[in-house]
Amino acid sequence: MSSNKVLSELLGYRKSIRVIDATLRDGGLVNDFYFDDEFVKKLYETNIHAGVDYMEMGYKASKEIFDPDKFGKWKFCDDDDIFDVIGEKNPDLKLCVMADVGRCDYKTDIRERSSSPLDMIRVATYINTLPTALDMIEDAKRKGYEVSCNIMAISNAQESDVQVALEMLGNSPVDVLYIVDSYGALYPEQIARIVDMYMETAEKYNKKIGIHAHNNQQLAFANTIEAVGDGVDYLDATYFGMGRGAGNCNMENLLGFLRNPKYKIFPVIQFIENCMTKLKEDGALWGYDLQYLMTGLLNQHPRSAIAFTKERRNDYTEFYKELIFHD
Amino acid sequence: MSSNKVLSELLGYRKSIRVIDATLRDGGLVNDFYFDDEFVKKLYETNIHAGVDYMEMGYKASKEIFDPDKFGKWKFCDDDDIFDVIGEKNPDLKLCVMADVGRCDYKTDIRERSSSPLDMIRVATYINTLPTALDMIEDAKRKGYEVSCNIMAISNAQESDVQVALEMLGNSPVDVLYIVDSYGALYPEQIARIVDMYMETAEKYNKKIGIHAHNNQQLAFANTIEAVGDGVDYLDATYFGMGRGAGNCNMENLLGFLRNPKYKIFPVIQFIENCMTKLKEDGALWGYDLQYLMTGLLNQHPRSAIAFTKERRNDYTEFYKELIFHD
Repeated sequence: MSSNKVLSELLGYRKSIRVIDATLRDGGLVNDFYFDDEFVKKLYETNIHAGVDYMEMGYKASKEIFDPDKFGKWKFCDDDDIFDVIGEKNPDLKLCVMADVGRCDYKTDIRERSSSPLDMIRVATYINTLPTALDMIEDAKRKGYEVSCNIMAISNAQESDVQVALEMLGNSPVDVLYIVDSYGALYPEQIARIVDMYMETAEKYNKKIGIHAHNNQQLAFANTIEAVGDGVDYLDATYFGMGRGAGNCNMENLLGFLRNPKYKIFPVIQFIENCMTKLKEDGALWGYDLQYLMTGLLNQHPRSAIAFTKERRNDYTEFYKELIFHD
Repeated sequence: MSSNKVLSELLGYRKSIRVIDATLRDGGLVNDFYFDDEFVKKLYETNIHAGVDYMEMGYKASKEIFDPDKFGKWKFCDDDDIFDVIGEKNPDLKLCVMADVGRCDYKTDIRERSSSPLDMIRVATYINTLPTALDMIEDAKRKGYEVSCNIMAISNAQESDVQVALEMLGNSPVDVLYIVDSYGALYPEQIARIVDMYMETAEKYNKKIGIHAHNNQQLAFANTIEAVGDGVDYLDATYFGMGRGAGNCNMENLLGFLRNPKYKIFPVIQFIENCMTKLKEDGALWGYDLQYLMTGLLNQHPRSAIAFTKERRNDYTEFYKELIFHD
């Protein structure tokens, strides 16, 4: 990063930046979405006080594929469940959900925006399922939503495939193109390179860019602020970094960094003290550890590391051998 | 960071890079240097297997100022204690100690290199005590050592003072100029700017640059690899990040990043599994937490956060108020 760029960016701020709280959604992968209503209500209020722009309520998962008896309600995010908890909607905080390609019944489960508490649908796709993602994007747009497309596992995708995907998305009505480092495998210099690629499409088609980072290498926050410096506007973060495996970019780190006075760190600290530490005490496990570093370094899905964690194993060297001996 | 720079650096490596294991020294601040001989011996062997270049054994602290009954022996690093543990010295791993301005009796306690196991003296100074640091540098050089000067708390120093200090150090016989982010307050873009400043002196006077980072904002590793990309060659890291407060750049992260095949991560994982997790189980406390984020964000010494940790407090909001109400 050049020195000139630095001086201007440390003291100023971009009004186009948006912060998305993904605690319920990515954090829900840690506790199967069993957040109680009190927690969700307080998180909602905290996001408003802290100046957060969007709150992701969870997934719109198919009830045919996923048994509602085996997950908390934020796996499914029925509109009425959201209204029950938040009451009358505060216009300062937009709400969104994630809809996974192949794991949701978007045509039936996503209502018209006019009768929904939701403002944005975040379509999550691997690069090879992009055609379905495009159908979901068009469906959500027709229903009146803002729409993002989150291309997962970008560290495993071929650059030329990504370029084709970006061109297709550029021609779609999507609003935000998300870089998703699902495996926590990327270094800031790689983020810079990927942002450059996304930025070309964004400028050509007037789209925004977002980033969702994982902390396998303790780089979720660093990669997010690298992306900010490179022009990325939509920034995912979670309280205390709660998220699958090594977790995500910490909200408290991010709001401490952003210079826009609308963002306030004090409510975030309060919420962590009052609500997040209790989750940890109750046994929810997330955050940097060696098993996640290993899958990140090897550019693998963290599922084996999550299993290692759930089994309370601590034989790191055996686990490493399992990873590298695996055919 | 530009894309061209990226492509060349991700696939290649600089042979001039040196990795310094600071576990005993900065980690010693966590447990008052009470590492048992078996631990130190295994750490020494692990560093050799992992390809680490230097091992910092601890401090050369004054026994007049610090009571030897209240600290483990690595606070003082008597040459004979080092020989006792390592036996015959392996030439693949250089040894160093830190000597703090005003807290060591360098003229008497640092022997000639020819009769010492040590290869490098790391002179640690705040910017206002530089004249004494220069005397220590000359003393160590006369005795035959490699010498680094570690300017602490760089985030609190005036840029013009740093420039004067660098000029004075440029004219001294010191070998390595260290950037030390004692408070964990700096972002990668600030590291880039500071490295630029150090680099001018380094190139003019043929010195090397080093970096020692703290993890208050979860940026110790990110700041270290930012510095690598900017030309910094001497990189401090500790096993599992063990170090004062939020800890340091994790050795396992750093060796996973560096491309030189001499560096091996497997022995590091083994050592963490066999020796570091036990330290944590026995009660040694370090690593990212909110209290350290706060002192980092406020650019303060972490001593209040360390006290908060030792008292097992978890009233983060009260602590934050104490920090910001403090006159």
